[in-house]
Amino acid sequence: MIVRDFNEIIENDRDRVVSDADWTSVRMLLAGDGMGFSFHITFLQEGSEHTFEYKNHFESVYCMKGKGSITDLATGETHKIRPGVMYALNNHDRHVLRAEEELVMACVFNPPVTGTEVHREDGSYAPAEETA
Amino acid sequence: MIVRDFNEIIENDRDRVVSDADWTSVRMLLAGDGMGFSFHITFLQEGSEHTFEYKNHFESVYCMKGKGSITDLATGETHKIRPGVMYALNNHDRHVLRAEEELVMACVFNPPVTGTEVHREDGSYAPAEETA
Repeated sequence: MIVRDFNEIIENDRDRVVSDADWTSVRMLLAGDGMGFSFHITFLQEGSEHTFEYKNHFESVYCMKGKGSITDLATGETHKIRPGVMYALNNHDRHVLRAEEELVMACVFNPPVTGTEVHREDGSYAPAEETA
Repeated sequence: MIVRDFNEIIENDRDRVVSDADWTSVRMLLAGDGMGFSFHITFLQEGSEHTFEYKNHFESVYCMKGKGSITDLATGETHKIRPGVMYALNNHDRHVLRAEEELVMACVFNPPVTGTEVHREDGSYAPAEETA
């Protein structure tokens, strides 16, 4: 059994905390944990806008806090994000995520993130075999 | 892209809401969604105690709200549960979960739950092939 505390990670395990310009992701579970998925708590800064396309991963994102929106770039449809709303990128959907207020999200990736990925120019993470 | 709202499901999509004596699970993502994992928001009633052993699944559980504890029945070790604590049953660990206050948990299952499982006598869910 693995037991991890978000608050403990923030203080003492900074290797699990990954930041970019306007988001921070706390990796609670990574590929090495052997669960077959990774689990992250991700913060998106108020006022920020992000274009992502996880060509090599499925991702689900559950909003725990904050307010924003997501636009599916294939259809042009925009959905409100608020606590309790989840989106799942079952078609590796290219999308724009906007944080009107800081968003706090519980994210699941399959295949699991290894911990060394960064977003590439095209908004994707590299496939696992390139980052292992 | 799949977009679902917890509050909408609670009101209009009761097929996704599964209850037992003292827990309720809202299935945000199930096997049929094709993500390779399922994602549930689960409520465990204040004062309740549960013995689970997911012999056929890996499960991770992230505490969003409440207070309780988990005991690993293989080692006898007990860990406090509070917001920000996650446990991951990477060895299909048999465990006792206690809710001192109502617990609200974000749960991920791999392989994904199909939606028709109930806990069996032994605290497990049937493997996917028996419930499909």
